[in-house]
Amino acid sequence: MFSGCQFSIYPMSDQFVDIILPAVAKLHQFTDLRIQTDDLSTLVVGPPERVFAAVTAAFAAACHQGGHVVLSALFSQGCPGEPDDPICTPNAAPNAYAEPQQQSLTGVPTEAQFSLYPLGYTDYMPLIAEVVDAAQAAGTLDERKHFCSRLRGDLAQVMLSVEQAFHHAASRTGHVVIHLTASTGSPSLKQTQHS
Amino acid sequence: MFSGCQFSIYPMSDQFVDIILPAVAKLHQFTDLRIQTDDLSTLVVGPPERVFAAVTAAFAAACHQGGHVVLSALFSQGCPGEPDDPICTPNAAPNAYAEPQQQSLTGVPTEAQFSLYPLGYTDYMPLIAEVVDAAQAAGTLDERKHFCSRLRGDLAQVMLSVEQAFHHAASRTGHVVIHLTASTGSPSLKQTQHS
Repeated sequence: MFSGCQFSIYPMSDQFVDIILPAVAKLHQFTDLRIQTDDLSTLVVGPPERVFAAVTAAFAAACHQGGHVVLSALFSQGCPGEPDDPICTPNAAPNAYAEPQQQSLTGVPTEAQFSLYPLGYTDYMPLIAEVVDAAQAAGTLDERKHFCSRLRGDLAQVMLSVEQAFHHAASRTGHVVIHLTASTGSPSLKQTQHS
Repeated sequence: MFSGCQFSIYPMSDQFVDIILPAVAKLHQFTDLRIQTDDLSTLVVGPPERVFAAVTAAFAAACHQGGHVVLSALFSQGCPGEPDDPICTPNAAPNAYAEPQQQSLTGVPTEAQFSLYPLGYTDYMPLIAEVVDAAQAAGTLDERKHFCSRLRGDLAQVMLSVEQAFHHAASRTGHVVIHLTASTGSPSLKQTQHS
């Protein structure tokens, strides 16, 4: 099975290069993953739990530089036609919501929104509702928006909810995609403006 | 049917607020659309062809300020459970690839990548292959990447390929989502770096 993530870090800063490059360099400690960077995104290939850890580490490093920084990430597993890569095999199939995990907080307050796409699966809407309800139960759900769900919390808490959603969906269908936008340091009020 | 887009503009600049706000203000000329902005994204609701025009206009305005600017956009149509909104009804069902459209170029050289998700549709992989082949025939396809396809061209050409893909998929299945990342002004080489 092939699994991984295409992600990008967007610092709203003139010094964006000096924020992005050291953040992406954090990935070098994940020696079990395949990493590939171009001008649009960085690809991380490996088992989902390692991929989530790597993306979180890179984004946290960028956030710790300060300012307004956004992560845009596409997590995918089981896309038909992708190579069956042995480095993607997890040690054990995770039971998404079975046991509470010990978490180290990152100290990065995060506003986020994500969308889950279970592909090739006709009963996908109840599955999406389940992961949104699980985020609510975990205390990270902030709001249901059109086309996505909004999360709030420490970056580690937000990423855990997204990762659990990913594992939960993967227990039902072979091909799962999640798109995540995570933001810190925005000067905007959360309050929605209508026009 | 409900259709629209959640999009965000990321200028890699200390002056990001002064680039984003005037760009989003361009949407006011689209008086037939519903617009709603929060700190994470701007929602545009209306018929797809108008939604694509509005997002393109906003991003082009940001790009014309110069510098490195990225668009992240989630286009969606037909999500079950969304309100059946009359303002989303297109004048006529578009025939995605039937006739070449007259295009005004924007002057914004664009590197992009997009992913198409036909939901609740088991035969989705051939459909994805069709829209990628169509982008290749149109001259905008640059590369097939893991989890997405890379496009290149004037912003108008890139957006046309994405919009055609959206309409083509919508002719097959009720619920269609496209995620698009579009970038201009990146100082990075396109060349992929492996590690």
